[in-house]
Amino acid sequence: MRSAERLGLEGEFPESELPLLVRRQGMAEWDHGVVRILDRRELPHREVYRDCRSPDEVAEAIETMVIQGAFSISIAAGFALALTKLGNDPAQDLRKAADRLLHTRPTGLALKRMMHACLAEAQSALTRGSDPIDSILSLVERGAAALARQGWKTGQRTSELLEDGARILTHCFPDRSYCYLLMEMRRAGKSMTVFCSETRPYLQGARLTAYCAHEAGFETKVVTDGMGAYLMRSGAVDALITAADRVCMDGTVCNKIGTYAHALAARANHLPYYVLRQSGPDTESADEGDIDIEMRSGDEVVTIAGARTAPAGVEGLYPGFDITPADLVSAVVTDRGVFEAQRIADYVQTAPFLTDAVV
Amino acid sequence: MRSAERLGLEGEFPESELPLLVRRQGMAEWDHGVVRILDRRELPHREVYRDCRSPDEVAEAIETMVIQGAFSISIAAGFALALTKLGNDPAQDLRKAADRLLHTRPTGLALKRMMHACLAEAQSALTRGSDPIDSILSLVERGAAALARQGWKTGQRTSELLEDGARILTHCFPDRSYCYLLMEMRRAGKSMTVFCSETRPYLQGARLTAYCAHEAGFETKVVTDGMGAYLMRSGAVDALITAADRVCMDGTVCNKIGTYAHALAARANHLPYYVLRQSGPDTESADEGDIDIEMRSGDEVVTIAGARTAPAGVEGLYPGFDITPADLVSAVVTDRGVFEAQRIADYVQTAPFLTDAVV
Repeated sequence: MRSAERLGLEGEFPESELPLLVRRQGMAEWDHGVVRILDRRELPHREVYRDCRSPDEVAEAIETMVIQGAFSISIAAGFALALTKLGNDPAQDLRKAADRLLHTRPTGLALKRMMHACLAEAQSALTRGSDPIDSILSLVERGAAALARQGWKTGQRTSELLEDGARILTHCFPDRSYCYLLMEMRRAGKSMTVFCSETRPYLQGARLTAYCAHEAGFETKVVTDGMGAYLMRSGAVDALITAADRVCMDGTVCNKIGTYAHALAARANHLPYYVLRQSGPDTESADEGDIDIEMRSGDEVVTIAGARTAPAGVEGLYPGFDITPADLVSAVVTDRGVFEAQRIADYVQTAPFLTDAVV
Repeated sequence: MRSAERLGLEGEFPESELPLLVRRQGMAEWDHGVVRILDRRELPHREVYRDCRSPDEVAEAIETMVIQGAFSISIAAGFALALTKLGNDPAQDLRKAADRLLHTRPTGLALKRMMHACLAEAQSALTRGSDPIDSILSLVERGAAALARQGWKTGQRTSELLEDGARILTHCFPDRSYCYLLMEMRRAGKSMTVFCSETRPYLQGARLTAYCAHEAGFETKVVTDGMGAYLMRSGAVDALITAADRVCMDGTVCNKIGTYAHALAARANHLPYYVLRQSGPDTESADEGDIDIEMRSGDEVVTIAGARTAPAGVEGLYPGFDITPADLVSAVVTDRGVFEAQRIADYVQTAPFLTDAVV
């Protein structure tokens, strides 16, 4: 490592060697009153950045999937809050902006936690007569670094579960922990084949997951969402690995729609299914009854590249997430250790890896 | 029914009331030395017909998915054989053309049977000094009518398995039997909701299956291939229904890639999975060891509407079909009756519905 080089948010790898999607610029950055967001919809072909100048512009960027992934969204939304124009009642202005941002994507929890933490920090700054915007920016930066370290630790623990030559099937984009898994497998000199299920309709698997694996030098293959089960049955895959948007206290996993079908096939074919969930379970979600599945516009399902696929008059359905029961999950990998899904509640009693987590 | 109106190939419904895809023009028609094929790739938006003037042109139409579905392909290929230019050794010319057509799609069996039957019929005509082309045309026409009657019977038996208000999940395009299921449900005055999984990469579910259900007046919804399992788990579906490209004598089902994942989810959620296989098992396939899964070009997986999805350097994988073990199948519905998958070999000993089947 060149000593002068800037390190990634996790403080371990040179920033330039990280997959783009976990570099600072690959998520959301604050630049003198502008929130600059990498437009993930343009990947892997073009690296385009969107400059947002108001909380509303960031909210729209989140809603239209310019940025995705629960933790990355929380960072973008945190910076967005710092774009709030403050009037006579700054606390009220910030609450209003937070409310707008909270309504962008209802299923993930990191966004809620980031908004609440930012509002509390700003309130505390206002009470002591400091600048609430500075306090929000500082909090979001600490939060982003904590998320990166947590993802790194989770990726490291996951790499210890995989042998040299492992062939993994992924779904959607498993975010930070997955990117650091790639870094750790590479550092350990272990080869890996990454099968990416494309993840219709937004194709995060084909566009983001495949991009990172290929960028990191691993053999990478893309399949459609219906092919994973066949690959697992035909002996082409050693393990299923996904992230989770939420893990309940009983081990229920909520992740991108399509995950449950893969989990069933992994179980039927005696393959391990590892869930990467760097921050452990959601202590406020006892079980799936506490999960609100986001229904997105069905138009996104019956349209490809702007052209309708189904005949006029036929609607699409687009539940954004699905539910995988704990008994289909082999292990939940977190920053604090590897847990059986049914024992994920033990996370709470386990010694913290981070002492400065925000979300 | 208007008495003067032409009936469909099955001899039961007015041709004009049938879904386009089981009308004569919706498959392949012989018209004075031209084989006219409805281009299914243009559906549901445009009704375009391709005129083929040589076996090679039809072979290319099959390979490029202008027409799809094992039985429809067999009809197109039968007519294609009648386009062969005959020289000094007509039997040899026909064998060569049949060979070209046989190599278009290796997994389905109807094509093989049609080619062998046509060659035998032509040989017999040549032996007795008749026109081999006329004999081929007559055979293909009888074969197409037999397929239609068989599909109608299968659709009728399937409709008896479904209650008024049934909500079914389909995958790919379940062809004739499915179209006649729609006709029979309508005739019985039973309502039905049809969930169509879109079936990447060719989207037969969104384009063809949804088209027929909507055309027939049923509530129709399109989902991505990863959503079926979620629908089944959430109680939105009463039965999974697909066709099969092949059923082995031990009840193993080979169908469009993505079927196996749906079958696992149906079983996990205690829903019946009905396989429509109008002509029963393939007596030459004992088990899955006898099935050759067609590997198509991976380019079709990493390209949507002509634009690459995955980054350059990343390949797609495209197995065209997958294998569903018999124990995941509730019943195989055929022209001769409804069979437990493990007892599908009984089909052979069951009284025939057709006495003039070709494929």
